[in-house]
Amino acid sequence: MVSLILISHSQKIVEGLKDLVGEMAKGIPIFVAGGNSEGGLGSNYELIKDVIQQAQSPHGSVILFDLGSSAMTAETVLDELDDAIKSNIKIVNAPLVEGAIVAAVEIRSGASLEDILATLKDIEIIK
Amino acid sequence: MVSLILISHSQKIVEGLKDLVGEMAKGIPIFVAGGNSEGGLGSNYELIKDVIQQAQSPHGSVILFDLGSSAMTAETVLDELDDAIKSNIKIVNAPLVEGAIVAAVEIRSGASLEDILATLKDIEIIK
Repeated sequence: MVSLILISHSQKIVEGLKDLVGEMAKGIPIFVAGGNSEGGLGSNYELIKDVIQQAQSPHGSVILFDLGSSAMTAETVLDELDDAIKSNIKIVNAPLVEGAIVAAVEIRSGASLEDILATLKDIEIIK
Repeated sequence: MVSLILISHSQKIVEGLKDLVGEMAKGIPIFVAGGNSEGGLGSNYELIKDVIQQAQSPHGSVILFDLGSSAMTAETVLDELDDAIKSNIKIVNAPLVEGAIVAAVEIRSGASLEDILATLKDIEIIK
């Protein structure tokens, strides 16, 4: 299955979202990174790096995020990976909660990375 | 100021979102209702009713939600209110996290309910 990576400035947001999405699409691989290294609001490069590495799947990974700076941190991590791995991990500009629900249901149904990206495209927004 | 009401099936999501939005737009009135009456995932009619009542502002209120059933519960609560109060409280079909951030910044700047609704219209999605 494609893996789902959720990144937020708040650990509570992604923990709650993992609970919710995990209930709606049981058994899919979900990985979350929330907050800064002190447990407060923010981004954590090391945590995001660890999570992206743990989440690696031969079927690919989808990254959803809350604010632009979360995406920038993820982008920095991806830039350090080999091109073959990097090309299989996609940062998507969809709403965090609604995108995660849509992606999770698609992942559960065994959809390919391309199909999931096409579905998320419909709810893309500028962040 | 317009008040902001955030409703989710997960208490953690709205608690984290309140932290995040409260940091980005300090001092605005934010009210949250998350989860079911047992503290699990779901909707809680009584909690949503209490929060909508507490949040009432002469400038109006914006309600954002995660899943359709949260919006339906809020709609049921609104249907029991006087028309004059009800017309001042708007359930908006924008992404929960991104909509809350946009709305909060607008509220902080003193925007009217109409202006906030117009801005949120740009990121409306079908849920």
